[in-house]
Amino acid sequence: MLRVTITISLKERVLDPEGQAIEHSLGNLGYHEASDIRTGRIISFTIDETNYSRANQKVAKMCETLLVNTVIENYDIAIEDQVEDE
Amino acid sequence: MLRVTITISLKERVLDPEGQAIEHSLGNLGYHEASDIRTGRIISFTIDETNYSRANQKVAKMCETLLVNTVIENYDIAIEDQVEDE
Repeated sequence: MLRVTITISLKERVLDPEGQAIEHSLGNLGYHEASDIRTGRIISFTIDETNYSRANQKVAKMCETLLVNTVIENYDIAIEDQVEDE
Repeated sequence: MLRVTITISLKERVLDPEGQAIEHSLGNLGYHEASDIRTGRIISFTIDETNYSRANQKVAKMCETLLVNTVIENYDIAIEDQVEDE
């Protein structure tokens, strides 16, 4: 079993209205030091696969078909051994 | 200038309906290998501060007051030097 973490971020030239809203709210609270705020998402899961390369291929396919909007988003896949709970 | 990346995830015992929805959708597409899907968010920004420790303190305060719902979410702060665009 492997643990997959997908980090999804908006492409650089894509507007980030959520980031702008956060920047605005931080400003209202007196935090004016933050700028160029960008938001992203993380999806992590356990995959029933032992081979890193095969897991990576499968996950890339999941990203392309469902998880990521590749028109406006980039993604990065990290795979590591599943740490078993005690 | 420093670049801050905040990674926000749901606490372990908190239900993740978005993760469940993704698991369901992946299953519908024939991907049954993924289980225990958890989702999270990333917020990154540039902070007008040069001292790592002061930046960390400020960002922690931003998290506690606005960015993170500490009742159900954990957060992790990473700070690094801002890489200037060419």
